[in-house]
Amino acid sequence: MAKNKFAPHHPRNRALTKPHGAGHVIGIDIGATNLRVALADTKGEVLAKWSTSTKRTSSPKMVMQQIRTGVNHLLQQACVPRSSLLAVAAGAPGITDSETGIVFATSFLKGWKNVRLADLLKSALDVPAVVENDVKLAAIGEHWMGSARGNGNFVFLAIGTGIAAGIFVNGQLVRGKNCAAGEVGYMVVPGTSEAPIKRGMPGSLESVIGGDGIGTQWLRACNGKYNSQAQDLTASEIFEHAAFGDRFAKTVLDHSARILAYAVYNISVVLNTSLFVLGGGVGMSAPLLHATRKILKQYDEPVLPKLITSRLGQDAQLIGAIRLALDEAESRANSQR
Amino acid sequence: MAKNKFAPHHPRNRALTKPHGAGHVIGIDIGATNLRVALADTKGEVLAKWSTSTKRTSSPKMVMQQIRTGVNHLLQQACVPRSSLLAVAAGAPGITDSETGIVFATSFLKGWKNVRLADLLKSALDVPAVVENDVKLAAIGEHWMGSARGNGNFVFLAIGTGIAAGIFVNGQLVRGKNCAAGEVGYMVVPGTSEAPIKRGMPGSLESVIGGDGIGTQWLRACNGKYNSQAQDLTASEIFEHAAFGDRFAKTVLDHSARILAYAVYNISVVLNTSLFVLGGGVGMSAPLLHATRKILKQYDEPVLPKLITSRLGQDAQLIGAIRLALDEAESRANSQR
Repeated sequence: MAKNKFAPHHPRNRALTKPHGAGHVIGIDIGATNLRVALADTKGEVLAKWSTSTKRTSSPKMVMQQIRTGVNHLLQQACVPRSSLLAVAAGAPGITDSETGIVFATSFLKGWKNVRLADLLKSALDVPAVVENDVKLAAIGEHWMGSARGNGNFVFLAIGTGIAAGIFVNGQLVRGKNCAAGEVGYMVVPGTSEAPIKRGMPGSLESVIGGDGIGTQWLRACNGKYNSQAQDLTASEIFEHAAFGDRFAKTVLDHSARILAYAVYNISVVLNTSLFVLGGGVGMSAPLLHATRKILKQYDEPVLPKLITSRLGQDAQLIGAIRLALDEAESRANSQR
Repeated sequence: MAKNKFAPHHPRNRALTKPHGAGHVIGIDIGATNLRVALADTKGEVLAKWSTSTKRTSSPKMVMQQIRTGVNHLLQQACVPRSSLLAVAAGAPGITDSETGIVFATSFLKGWKNVRLADLLKSALDVPAVVENDVKLAAIGEHWMGSARGNGNFVFLAIGTGIAAGIFVNGQLVRGKNCAAGEVGYMVVPGTSEAPIKRGMPGSLESVIGGDGIGTQWLRACNGKYNSQAQDLTASEIFEHAAFGDRFAKTVLDHSARILAYAVYNISVVLNTSLFVLGGGVGMSAPLLHATRKILKQYDEPVLPKLITSRLGQDAQLIGAIRLALDEAESRANSQR
C-alpha cells in the first residue's frame, strides 16, 4: 500500500506546494520493513514524502520498481518535471561501499549480496545516483539538521534489531578501510559473549541489547510468570514497564543500560567525542536513556560523554540521503564549471 | 648524565656532519625516565641527538634546564647557529592540548598539572614552540616515517606502564573534544575490572596488560614457586619465558594476548582501521604480537585488522616531534608570505 505516512505538521512538510527552483533531488531510505522516498529542492526543503512496506518485496528488482512508483508519485504531487532531477541518494541496511555504489551484504531484505545499488538506481531513474550505509546516512542527517547540527565530532548510535554507529571525526564521516567503521554491534564488553561471531550472525553487543536480545532477556527474567501477550512486548514497551515499576522489566532495563554504558564508554575512550546521539527503535527509549546516563555518570574518567536521543527520529536517514544527493548534485555542478 | 645514547648506525644518524640548509628544528620527547632531544634540518634529516635521564629531575623548570643544555650541545655538535632554529616541538606523557600548549596532567614526572609547556619552551629557547601528547606524537612519527607510512587510517597502540593510542582517521590525527582521544587504557572488556576509575588511577585495561598489570599477573601465576629474581622479571622477559615454554609465563601471555585482542577488536569495530601498530616496552614484545594475532584471527567478523610492531621503536615520538616542528615552521613561513 503506497501512501504518504508522514504527519502534515512535520516542519519539513511545510512546503508541499512550493514550486521547483533550480533543480531537485531524491532521498531514499531502504529499510528492513519500510521504503521511504522524499523529494527536496536544492535548499534541502522537502517538498513531498512517500513510503511503502518492504516486508514482502525484498529483491533489488522489486525495490527498484517500488522506488520508480514512489518517485513518479512525488514528482506528480509536487508538480516537478522529471528533467529537474539532479541526483538521487539511497541508504541500505548493510555494509555499503559509497565509492563503488555496491551494497556488500544486508542481514534484512532477505540478505542482499554485492548489489550494485547505485547502478540500479541510475538505470531506474536516469539520474546520477549515490549510496551509503543507512546508519552512516542517519549520522549525516543528524549532522546536517538534527541533534548534532554543526558538531564535527559525534557518534550516532542506532539501536534497533541490530546495532551500528555513524561516526563523525574532525568534521568528516568515518567510513573505514572496508566501509565497516561503526559496526559496533560486534563489540565485546563485560556481560557479552566472548565467542567469535560466525558470518551473518548478530554481533556480541547486539545479541544482548539489540531488539531480539532484549526480548530474550525479558523472557528469561519473566520465566513464564506473565501471559504470552506480556511476553511479546517490544524492547521499548519493556523499558516503559520498568519505568512504571515492573521488577522483571527493571532487571532487563538495568542490565541493558549497563551494557550500553560500557559500549558508549569504550567508544568514548577511543574517540573522545563530545556527543552520542541515540537512534533506532530501542535507542530512542527514554527510560533506557535515563538509566544509561545514570550509570555513565560513574564512568567519568577520562571524560564523561553527553548522551541524547535523536531529534530527527525515523527521518534521520531520509534527511541524510537528501544531504548526500545535494552533495552529489553540487559536486557535479562544480565539476562542469 | 647527558650523553648521546643513540647507535651511530641508525639511519637517521647518518648526516651528523651535514651543514645546515635553510633552517633547523628541534624535536623533544619528554618521557617518564628519559628526555630525548634531536636537531633536524628542514628536510627532516636528523643531524644530532642527545638524551638524559628525567628520573630525578621532574619539575617543568628542571626539565627546561635540561632541554636548554641539550639544545646547546646539539647546535654546537652540528655547527648550527642558534639563529637558524625555526621551531621546536615536544611531547609529554599526559593529556595535552596542542592548541593552547598546555599539559593538563601527567601520571609520571611527579604529576605535572596544567603546565604551559609551549610557553615555557618558547621562553627557554626563544623559538616558536608546539606541544602534543607523546603517544599522538609517536603516531605522527609512524605515519611520517614508520610502520604506517602513507596510511591515513591506522592506530598506534602504545603499551608500556600505561596504555594509550594515537589514531589517524581520513589522513588526520584524532585529538578528541578534550584532547583525550586514544585514552584506551580505560577500556572495559571481558576480563577487566568493571569498577569505575578514580582520578589519577590506572584504567581497567592498563591495570591488566600494562607493565605493572602483567607483573601482578605473573606474581599470581607463580604463586611463590620462583625466587625473587624471577619474580622481578619485566613484562617482555615474562613473555620471552612463555615463548620458551614456562607454563606460568604462558598463562600470563595467553591471558594478556586475549585481553589485548579484545581491545584491538573493539577499536577495530569502531574505526575499521586497516592497521594497528604496537609500540611501547610491552607492545614491542614479539611473543605478545604472535599470541594476539592468533586469537584475533578467530575474531574476523566484520573484518580482521592487521597487527604489526612499530618500526621506529623508541624513536617514534622523537620523529613525530620533528614532523610537528617542521609543520609549525612551514605554517609560519606560509603565513608570512
